[in-house]
Amino acid sequence: MASTGTWPPLREELRGIEPYGAPQLDVPVQLNVNENPYAPSAECVADIAAAVADAATSLNRYPDREFTALREALAAYLNTDGGRGVTPDQVWAANGSNEVMLQLLQAFGGPGRCALSFAPTYSMYPEYARDAMTEWVVGHRETDFSLDLDAARALVEERRPAVVLLPSPNNPTGTALPPEAVSMLCEAAGDGIVVVDEAYGEFRRAGTPSALELLDRHRNLVVSRTMSKAFALAGARLGYFAAAREICDAIRVVRLPYHLSAVTQATALAALQHAPELLGNVDALRKERDLTVDWLRAQGLEVADSDANFALFGRFADRHAVWQGLLDRGVLIRETGPDGWLRVSVGTPEEMTAFKDALTDVMKADPVNAQQKDLT
Amino acid sequence: MASTGTWPPLREELRGIEPYGAPQLDVPVQLNVNENPYAPSAECVADIAAAVADAATSLNRYPDREFTALREALAAYLNTDGGRGVTPDQVWAANGSNEVMLQLLQAFGGPGRCALSFAPTYSMYPEYARDAMTEWVVGHRETDFSLDLDAARALVEERRPAVVLLPSPNNPTGTALPPEAVSMLCEAAGDGIVVVDEAYGEFRRAGTPSALELLDRHRNLVVSRTMSKAFALAGARLGYFAAAREICDAIRVVRLPYHLSAVTQATALAALQHAPELLGNVDALRKERDLTVDWLRAQGLEVADSDANFALFGRFADRHAVWQGLLDRGVLIRETGPDGWLRVSVGTPEEMTAFKDALTDVMKADPVNAQQKDLT
Repeated sequence: MASTGTWPPLREELRGIEPYGAPQLDVPVQLNVNENPYAPSAECVADIAAAVADAATSLNRYPDREFTALREALAAYLNTDGGRGVTPDQVWAANGSNEVMLQLLQAFGGPGRCALSFAPTYSMYPEYARDAMTEWVVGHRETDFSLDLDAARALVEERRPAVVLLPSPNNPTGTALPPEAVSMLCEAAGDGIVVVDEAYGEFRRAGTPSALELLDRHRNLVVSRTMSKAFALAGARLGYFAAAREICDAIRVVRLPYHLSAVTQATALAALQHAPELLGNVDALRKERDLTVDWLRAQGLEVADSDANFALFGRFADRHAVWQGLLDRGVLIRETGPDGWLRVSVGTPEEMTAFKDALTDVMKADPVNAQQKDLT
Repeated sequence: MASTGTWPPLREELRGIEPYGAPQLDVPVQLNVNENPYAPSAECVADIAAAVADAATSLNRYPDREFTALREALAAYLNTDGGRGVTPDQVWAANGSNEVMLQLLQAFGGPGRCALSFAPTYSMYPEYARDAMTEWVVGHRETDFSLDLDAARALVEERRPAVVLLPSPNNPTGTALPPEAVSMLCEAAGDGIVVVDEAYGEFRRAGTPSALELLDRHRNLVVSRTMSKAFALAGARLGYFAAAREICDAIRVVRLPYHLSAVTQATALAALQHAPELLGNVDALRKERDLTVDWLRAQGLEVADSDANFALFGRFADRHAVWQGLLDRGVLIRETGPDGWLRVSVGTPEEMTAFKDALTDVMKADPVNAQQKDLT
């Protein structure tokens, strides 16, 4: 290649970009990446190890490219949490939700097409679009982070996105999307694909339905999930979705061959057999979340309604100073979302006590930076 | 999106494409995807299971995004097989070589840039380029599958590719590239990246050096390897490369966060501690390859010189008929490469006997289709 004047010769639009990623710091209380604080039980660990040992005896062979057993188990699980007769050929999986999203954009996006979401939302979405050379169009949420449905529909009808990304609950705000919004946007999208990203779906509050219930009604609806959050399996990197069979089949054209290792398949399968245990702490985490939201509001802070395992709160005159103050006290949360806001993941009661103590301390020690922003 | 007239609305250039992948058939003798026929030992399996059990106790947490321990182990291994002082920050890894290649093309290719290789070669390369929206330029190999270096340099200088893909040994022909060819093309490529794909590098014949020896001399050289072949770990999906630190750093911008699971990292690390054992059959496989090549030639067949764990042989009037004849006799090989040729992976002595018996039988039973093509 002719000299670009810089080395290494990254694509122009990638130069100077910082790689995505929360700081990985060794801190006693980690409430920054929405992990489930409860580790798998000894029984679950033993079953995972046994399943991997079994897979390892033929690790010299390539894995099942179609991950048939895993798709069966994922379909069965989805049918216990909102799915209505989801079949294995309606399920697709990859190394984390982010590979799932990239594959969807590689298949249905691309040059001359656009993808759309509504900000503030998950900060990786525009990166997936960039990596799939898909134009990124961003609408906006209301001040309470809900969607103005008429405006959302109008934007979809105007821009005709190939892919609409609708996280529900939304990250980093925790906002769930009502089913009528999903249906309306599926209809507005025409031949566009509508991805309802339910990475945090299992944490939704009672009465908030899953978009899985709408799968039969919209052939362009994709509902994605992950084993990283409620399932307490972030380290295993297993994201998946349910959709019409034709959509799963289409992804095969862009998936890298053998993208799911035999070890990943064995691990996820073993974990799915422990679903009741792994999900057993979801109720406790939901309660802890509600307590955290109440407590933050009692401190006079603004807090977004949350259907997820985190809460977005603020607004601080200098959020970075507050974030740093918490970190200095051994509590790592996330500096994300609109300016002035911070996001805290829901941990164990002990971790949340540590968080509350640290935040109380920071707000006392540094009242100016912790001051509420002028809300007007 | 407005109606495209087809459902689902795949990108236009993807429509009608068959997903890549050799048939996964349940056949007694599998010699179709260049796997190592020797499974990990019971000790290795136990160590992998123990490492995964250890990782599983904190599987609710995200993995080390920088896979530091694994990079250290991979660098140490490379320095035992051609590397000269490769450091951990000169190593990058992903879920199989194909994710490595995709990441390289996402970082350094893209619209307005092209990638180049020389056919016949690995049939996934143009797919990676397509998925990274990179123009695919293909030069050609000589009739003995070597490169005409002057022609290759002229093509590189003419097209100025952003990425040159040089498999060595080449798949499906087995042809290794001399180091002077690598150096010449690194120089000709200017600011372009030159990837020497040594997926089959460990099988090279005595006297064939690894391109790792040239790393210090060319800042644009990337040497990729995989644990899927000589390392007998195809099921674990671990590809990696060594290059200048700046190139590894650049990949971070396009890698999906946490792309290597804690389970994958633990598995690969445990396996690397068994490197001498896992690689222990490489010599036997090289011998078996040479015997296979000799035997095929003794049958009057053409066979490409091979530095890999497979042999390309032919040329048949109807290669599909020969492939099917072998399959009917319980031996699965690969219908790939230029018309008239077939590729057989090197298996155990028992498997190669089964292959030879089946091929003898097919050539007797079906002399017309097995007839050599007119070589003029």
